[in-house]
Amino acid sequence: MIVVMRMGSGAAEVGGVIERICELGYKPHVSSGAERVIIGVIGNDRPLDPEHFISLAGVEKVVPILQPYKLASRDFQPTDTVIRVNDALIGGKGITFMAGPCSVESREQTFEVARQLKEMGVKIMRGGAFKPRTSPYSFQGLGEEALHILADVREELGISIITEVMAPDEVALVAHYADILQIGTRNMQNYRLLEEVGRQSKPVLIKRGMSSTIEELLLAAEYVLSQGNTQVMLCERGIRTFEKATRSTFDINAIPVLKSLTHLPVIADPSHGTGRWDLVTPVSLGAIAAGGDGLLIEVHSHPEHAMSDGGQSLRPDKCRQLLEDLSRVAAAVGRRVDLADGVSAPALANAVGVKVNAA
Amino acid sequence: MIVVMRMGSGAAEVGGVIERICELGYKPHVSSGAERVIIGVIGNDRPLDPEHFISLAGVEKVVPILQPYKLASRDFQPTDTVIRVNDALIGGKGITFMAGPCSVESREQTFEVARQLKEMGVKIMRGGAFKPRTSPYSFQGLGEEALHILADVREELGISIITEVMAPDEVALVAHYADILQIGTRNMQNYRLLEEVGRQSKPVLIKRGMSSTIEELLLAAEYVLSQGNTQVMLCERGIRTFEKATRSTFDINAIPVLKSLTHLPVIADPSHGTGRWDLVTPVSLGAIAAGGDGLLIEVHSHPEHAMSDGGQSLRPDKCRQLLEDLSRVAAAVGRRVDLADGVSAPALANAVGVKVNAA
Amino acid sequence: MIVVMRMGSGAAEVGGVIERICELGYKPHVSSGAERVIIGVIGNDRPLDPEHFISLAGVEKVVPILQPYKLASRDFQPTDTVIRVNDALIGGKGITFMAGPCSVESREQTFEVARQLKEMGVKIMRGGAFKPRTSPYSFQGLGEEALHILADVREELGISIITEVMAPDEVALVAHYADILQIGTRNMQNYRLLEEVGRQSKPVLIKRGMSSTIEELLLAAEYVLSQGNTQVMLCERGIRTFEKATRSTFDINAIPVLKSLTHLPVIADPSHGTGRWDLVTPVSLGAIAAGGDGLLIEVHSHPEHAMSDGGQSLRPDKCRQLLEDLSRVAAAVGRRVDLADGVSAPALANAVGVKVNAA
Amino acid sequence: MIVVMRMGSGAAEVGGVIERICELGYKPHVSSGAERVIIGVIGNDRPLDPEHFISLAGVEKVVPILQPYKLASRDFQPTDTVIRVNDALIGGKGITFMAGPCSVESREQTFEVARQLKEMGVKIMRGGAFKPRTSPYSFQGLGEEALHILADVREELGISIITEVMAPDEVALVAHYADILQIGTRNMQNYRLLEEVGRQSKPVLIKRGMSSTIEELLLAAEYVLSQGNTQVMLCERGIRTFEKATRSTFDINAIPVLKSLTHLPVIADPSHGTGRWDLVTPVSLGAIAAGGDGLLIEVHSHPEHAMSDGGQSLRPDKCRQLLEDLSRVAAAVGRRVDLADGVSAPALANAVGVKVNAA
Repeated sequence: MIVVMRMGSGAAEVGGVIERICELGYKPHVSSGAERVIIGVIGNDRPLDPEHFISLAGVEKVVPILQPYKLASRDFQPTDTVIRVNDALIGGKGITFMAGPCSVESREQTFEVARQLKEMGVKIMRGGAFKPRTSPYSFQGLGEEALHILADVREELGISIITEVMAPDEVALVAHYADILQIGTRNMQNYRLLEEVGRQSKPVLIKRGMSSTIEELLLAAEYVLSQGNTQVMLCERGIRTFEKATRSTFDINAIPVLKSLTHLPVIADPSHGTGRWDLVTPVSLGAIAAGGDGLLIEVHSHPEHAMSDGGQSLRPDKCRQLLEDLSRVAAAVGRRVDLADGVSAPALANAVGVKVNAA
Repeated sequence: MIVVMRMGSGAAEVGGVIERICELGYKPHVSSGAERVIIGVIGNDRPLDPEHFISLAGVEKVVPILQPYKLASRDFQPTDTVIRVNDALIGGKGITFMAGPCSVESREQTFEVARQLKEMGVKIMRGGAFKPRTSPYSFQGLGEEALHILADVREELGISIITEVMAPDEVALVAHYADILQIGTRNMQNYRLLEEVGRQSKPVLIKRGMSSTIEELLLAAEYVLSQGNTQVMLCERGIRTFEKATRSTFDINAIPVLKSLTHLPVIADPSHGTGRWDLVTPVSLGAIAAGGDGLLIEVHSHPEHAMSDGGQSLRPDKCRQLLEDLSRVAAAVGRRVDLADGVSAPALANAVGVKVNAA
Repeated sequence: MIVVMRMGSGAAEVGGVIERICELGYKPHVSSGAERVIIGVIGNDRPLDPEHFISLAGVEKVVPILQPYKLASRDFQPTDTVIRVNDALIGGKGITFMAGPCSVESREQTFEVARQLKEMGVKIMRGGAFKPRTSPYSFQGLGEEALHILADVREELGISIITEVMAPDEVALVAHYADILQIGTRNMQNYRLLEEVGRQSKPVLIKRGMSSTIEELLLAAEYVLSQGNTQVMLCERGIRTFEKATRSTFDINAIPVLKSLTHLPVIADPSHGTGRWDLVTPVSLGAIAAGGDGLLIEVHSHPEHAMSDGGQSLRPDKCRQLLEDLSRVAAAVGRRVDLADGVSAPALANAVGVKVNAA
Repeated sequence: MIVVMRMGSGAAEVGGVIERICELGYKPHVSSGAERVIIGVIGNDRPLDPEHFISLAGVEKVVPILQPYKLASRDFQPTDTVIRVNDALIGGKGITFMAGPCSVESREQTFEVARQLKEMGVKIMRGGAFKPRTSPYSFQGLGEEALHILADVREELGISIITEVMAPDEVALVAHYADILQIGTRNMQNYRLLEEVGRQSKPVLIKRGMSSTIEELLLAAEYVLSQGNTQVMLCERGIRTFEKATRSTFDINAIPVLKSLTHLPVIADPSHGTGRWDLVTPVSLGAIAAGGDGLLIEVHSHPEHAMSDGGQSLRPDKCRQLLEDLSRVAAAVGRRVDLADGVSAPALANAVGVKVNAA
């Protein structure tokens, strides 16, 4: 950390900063320029809070040098974290493909789309049981009933389940049914919830807050990691900007930035990242070409009857087409979509064939 | 709601939209322009979800006409909501002044600042017991111990208490000690928490999410109101923008916008809205001149030793000066700062004198 | 400037940075922490460009310490710049009030509003001759004809004129007619234009780019100042954010931030800063309470027939009411609205009376 | 256009709106809902300005239905515009690759990188002669001397030139030397400049303003198109957001959005879109996978000595590697990088071979 003094600050003020540095167990390193004195804070501990210095007399600004997270950083763990979820590996050479409806609306709807996804070789299905909705008058999810439906899907079809958990006191319940616990964008800074999933043994996917910085996303991961749960994956799902043509602005830069800063797998959610089904395929391909480790895609058999997010859901045939295109792009960047063996659709089988040959 | 069809969409597509409108119990109203067909959705119910139409064939976009909230709107209740908190009235002619430390750090620190505020006539003190912090390594608040300290302050000094609640299962505990329950910026869309405070009988202050729209803030209020708790106040605390000179951008426009849309009191938090103590006074004056109903200010007797937010905390003498300036500005817009009678500081007493005469 | 090296960077990389520092005529100051080496760049010249270091091997980031502008800074000139425009002083104790139509639409319209403003005591009138419009199909202004009308207004009524200039080769023409040259928000980084107005002897008002930082605004001023024109005033006119309830988000924080960083006068434009006439008065009062030196307000006698910006224009009676309210708020912060003597409207005269007594 | 009336507005107010609609030569279409009257404005002309209605009594809001641009829209021209620049075709099946230094710094530097690019098969070189710089103290470009150097490069190496033009009175000069005129991000709304390049016969590349919406970018194109120059290409170069880890946020969504709205070619500039050379390759691949028609890349033989933008410039060997990776990704989406025949580098030749076979 660097403390920059105001122009004209005197010995007493510089002394006050030095005193505080020593009180905190660090060493000061003073450097006098032509216009400003700057004081380095030297030590080997975890990051300091700039608040310790900003109110001291004569201080103009405080510049952090070290990253404020540790366990999530590549400095701490240089090799990639790979997470096993039943027959799927997330964060290695493969591209993870998770798909399914925004909400679990009924047993029939859920099984219909699950069978379609299973047939495409998809190993992990998403489906919302508890839904955070902007309006209290919107559909709020089926809750525990939805968890039972998802458990039956898993049992009958052998597909893994990712679903969102919204409150600390629901974590145990959701963890009982789900293979991956999802923290939604509105809860990325719900620290009680992060701590609670940090105490579970199930993998956790953390969606970036829609106006959270990359650094804050890594600090949210740090909350989970610091409780002992090391199976954390991050999800870029678009940020809020001035642009109104799309619901969010998918931050593709975040993918290579995260891959350089952290060892955790990075998943892309172009359904929320664009808010429009017709943009999902191009942005999905872009996200994987840019180095993403997987996709989380909303798929609904009848989007026009979906109880939430119909406008951004792919129909199954579009999803199948996406998988074909994706297989080619994955191969182009030296990777392979992680699908179950023996998928039936001929077109997809061909695409997978091309991919295997090319890889 | 208006459904705009794509150029060239035909009778089948228009028919599909009309069918859906009728299914949902509304009436269609078709209007054919030179380039586009647009279809109005007529009905007398609460707002429709655009999702019902956006995935239908031939639909280009869906434009909501009505506000998506109801109980929070001035259409629903034209007269201002006024909330009584012991000897204070929030939302009427008076300007509410709430102040205190970011965090309750110790009994001594809390009583010291409480006595100073009491002496200035401040009726409501803020102080964090549970602290949502971006980093898991930052001070997290004293928790229940802090609530005991705040309760003792209230008992001994007769000052009301506002403090934050972070999780649904802590609401009952915090409501036991606090006079006003605060929902923090990171929890504005924590719907479980909003529902839980909606079931309490204590007033609630909802801070705007740092990247939430005004409409989303009103929908958060709607969550609380729809559970039966009508004592809700809103707090503008700055939004996240590209500007880096300040921690947040205080959205002063939001004050008159909210006053026109809702009957709920509107409080300003320039401490978080600027992030710099030297900007707190000018922005506080601006917020009240623009029509705000009150202020929430961080005050610390020794900001350089504060465990959080020291950089944006006023020292007590600066707080006293703010109160003097504020009294004059409040009078200029026909209002009066709501302070206890007989405050002792002569300068402040004078200012109050001016104010009383002018009002 | 501080150069932060990557973890694990070695002597060769540190040496490379030191070599570059010396090449540029500065001195290095190396500081080795537990995890990172950081190198201070010491010298007494104007700010360095971080580009010199960011591509060097082993460099993680470069942190500027000094402000990149000089002539605009309070470090360079501690006392406020005060600009005389005929009978008005901008940047001193007085509050400057500039008002008028968005566009000069006709001789009749311009004279009608000019007479109304004159009667209120307004000393400076705004009116657009050349209009930068987002669409090529919108009204583009009357151009030189409008300048003639404005010149006649000045001649007949003795009111000073501020109008926008859009291109370097129009500067001389506009400077011939106007008292203040306005640089619009879309041209804040039109450097050729800034240089050209920097060579004029007329005062310049620079509007903040709608997504420019405060630092970039000061650098735009630096372009003008560095050409020799020291009569520069800055204008906060709202920035672009995610909030859609208003056309722009008026950045009230920018007012005290600018007042602390620069000696130049700071004007507020709540007409563009809100985009809604019903928000202009509260935000104007807020801007002055927060320390602004003046206002730039759109006023139109018949907003419903305005050829541009009708939705954000005040009618003359609302403008008169704003002036009354403003006089009280200005007095509350120890200032006085700078109006011509002997204004006729009784209500306003009263307000001014109150103000004079209180000041 | 839809005019939404306030709740409770009466016959006189509705009548006023209808009268205005008729005055303007349109037809009204009134629709009375339970809470609001809404009035459609029907006509076959180009888009109306909402300003005509927003100030009328009783109007709550005005909702545009049609796009405000025409010549740039796919409704106007469904087939893709393809632009020929010597031996290159922009906007067809091929992927255009434009690269070169941020600034022309010297004859030697320019020829060195030009030869390296030529060897890779690059057909179009970028190089700044006039540089818009945030600070007046930064390198401003060599100006006309740089244009002579670029002309010599073109003459000797047969490579086409794209370079920026900053002011209307420099357009003729730049158009004399350049093959493509570039409008920089800070000038996207410099309408005088847009009009002037609209009167030239050279192709124009318009960079999106760093905080301009997609709609505003299309309106900037409309300015050029409406002057008669139909050879316009658009460039996504990142937008300004709250995220600070990268200089800009590259808006990948904009690529498929633009491809759906307009027939004009869409180029990506990941150098400015990220601001970091190590992110250029992944984001370039992402942009092309998402449907972009080309790339504009900063390449410098010695980035650590670049006079501008060194931090985001690729070294030639990294550029060559990007071209190899790009060839595979282009093939995966059914396209081919448009390079000169017989490029020499074996690795690149191989990559191109793979591409040809796979396509």
